[in-house]
Amino acid sequence: MRTALVIGTGLIGTSAALALAGRGVAVHLADHDPERARTAAALGAGTDDPPEGPVDLAVVAVPPAHTAKALADAMGAGLARGYLDVASVKGGPRRELEALSLDLSAYIGTHPMSGKERSGPLAAGADLFEGRPWVLTPTRDTDTEVLNLALELVALCGAVPVVMDADAHDRAVALVSHTPQLLSSLVAARLREADETAVRLCGQGIRDVTRIAASDPRMWVDILSANPGPVADVLAGVAADLDETVRALRSLQSADETERRGGADGIQEVLRRGNEGRARVPGKHGAAPASYEIVAVLIGDRPGELARIFADADHAGVNIEDVRIEHATGRQAGLVQLMVEPMAATLLSAALRERGWSIRQ
Amino acid sequence: MRTALVIGTGLIGTSAALALAGRGVAVHLADHDPERARTAAALGAGTDDPPEGPVDLAVVAVPPAHTAKALADAMGAGLARGYLDVASVKGGPRRELEALSLDLSAYIGTHPMSGKERSGPLAAGADLFEGRPWVLTPTRDTDTEVLNLALELVALCGAVPVVMDADAHDRAVALVSHTPQLLSSLVAARLREADETAVRLCGQGIRDVTRIAASDPRMWVDILSANPGPVADVLAGVAADLDETVRALRSLQSADETERRGGADGIQEVLRRGNEGRARVPGKHGAAPASYEIVAVLIGDRPGELARIFADADHAGVNIEDVRIEHATGRQAGLVQLMVEPMAATLLSAALRERGWSIRQ
Repeated sequence: MRTALVIGTGLIGTSAALALAGRGVAVHLADHDPERARTAAALGAGTDDPPEGPVDLAVVAVPPAHTAKALADAMGAGLARGYLDVASVKGGPRRELEALSLDLSAYIGTHPMSGKERSGPLAAGADLFEGRPWVLTPTRDTDTEVLNLALELVALCGAVPVVMDADAHDRAVALVSHTPQLLSSLVAARLREADETAVRLCGQGIRDVTRIAASDPRMWVDILSANPGPVADVLAGVAADLDETVRALRSLQSADETERRGGADGIQEVLRRGNEGRARVPGKHGAAPASYEIVAVLIGDRPGELARIFADADHAGVNIEDVRIEHATGRQAGLVQLMVEPMAATLLSAALRERGWSIRQ
Repeated sequence: MRTALVIGTGLIGTSAALALAGRGVAVHLADHDPERARTAAALGAGTDDPPEGPVDLAVVAVPPAHTAKALADAMGAGLARGYLDVASVKGGPRRELEALSLDLSAYIGTHPMSGKERSGPLAAGADLFEGRPWVLTPTRDTDTEVLNLALELVALCGAVPVVMDADAHDRAVALVSHTPQLLSSLVAARLREADETAVRLCGQGIRDVTRIAASDPRMWVDILSANPGPVADVLAGVAADLDETVRALRSLQSADETERRGGADGIQEVLRRGNEGRARVPGKHGAAPASYEIVAVLIGDRPGELARIFADADHAGVNIEDVRIEHATGRQAGLVQLMVEPMAATLLSAALRERGWSIRQ
């Protein structure tokens, strides 16, 4: 790939342009707002001059609702040899294009699974996709040359290609992304009317479950509006399980011993299924969650405490696999949980204790 | 407080005993399994010899289902001046005691809100309660002397006392602990039947939402069996919101523009309420969540990377408020999100960049 045209210079478009430009591809930038394209160009993502002839690859990076139209316009104008989009849903845009009776052999739908707390070109970075899955949804009609252009883009961005059917992709993100978002919001919403004293009892569990409930509602309305069917299907399954859970809890209130036992079995089953599902969530580097040992260390809230702890762990030759900081309530101290390979836990505890740290067993 | 008797030497009982013994209180240890009491004594938590006369405070730290009986036995034998339990629910044990027509002026129900990934005396530590809320549920009948003994215990354990009504406590933990546990399990359970490819798309959002779905089902059946009513009430509220959410998503599938707009408004409302509830979850030190800036740094998976990063931040004079490690998929690299006060973000980014770190904007 020698030339590319990025249409839509938001977070995703500008990040891809930065990655391509950094690897020597001549990148042209276009946006319905020329100021944004200029900003992206100023960041080193390419030029906002239009290309003189067809480029190798056109990357359409506009919101889901505008994706099909932007693709159709680009294809109609013959701007490139191959075309792809990066919208977070794949079935809808494809069906819209099919309805236009376009030749789709030069098109491939894709979706880079990259986080974005912020949006716009200023939030972009060439490393946004580094190590993340990037879904490609070729069909029987997709030219191999176009698939290879998409694979080259993914490789130049440092992402990991994952090939999927468009509708399977939409069902997958409904399950692993859209459903957790809505359930996190629903759990958090219950706190709106809670007493201040009740809220003081929040611990790390609810903090984790509700973290993404702080997400931007407008962005999520856009995403969910493009994928309502698959999300509703998954949520209907959760709703059925939830009704079963409420029934089991009501049985636990019964005066009848047998009914209570049935209720306990029902609750145990809900929790057991949760264990099974959770075990499938990939951990570090896409592997199954490793069973790390936790070494918990008490720290004060002064600058340098974390630095000292990590330096001491490093000095002991122990690799920290993951870290979690639990905050204390009402006083200036916290607990740092260091996750390490089981064989390294004893060594690390001893080394940190020797250097004066207070370790919780 | 000069003498105490801890009945039940699991994680909580042994940790409290260690804290008391460490502050000079003469602690006696009892357990239905004498081996566990011996283990706790060997850890320095006190003596497993029975006290010669009544102690100042008896701490009953047995599972919820056995709490009322253990308290009644201890009170019947006149083992102490004051009695408290540490069960995770408070209404049920109190009503069981009231049904026995005991004089409850010497009793106070309490609940230390301390995490416990592991159980048993070997997991205990004197600092388990450090900085955590410890709920006390005195009634009009509670002797002030007994309330003061409980407050002294909480202070000696380094915890933060929170006074609540017993039933309000049970409703609060249903909301902030038991409900998030069950919803986390229900979301995770949906992954059981998912395709391997779908599971590969899991990101940090679902990883956080389902973290506590890995909890021990037996422990949670015990906890939920003691608090089924309040949990069922909260879940019924979530179920109603969930049904509303599914209806809004189905409206988004409509051919009718007005109905679609109504669906989008409904979803926006669900997400907005989630924002509001999440904003009430206390962050560090029990304060409202501060709006930290995130400085995201790419690191390799070698020992010492985190140590270097924290040392460099320290060198720049910046206090890291919180940290999150995001793991890359399929390659040995990750992203560290450093949360800092907004005013420190630019300084930290510049300092880390100068020292060769790759910062994601």
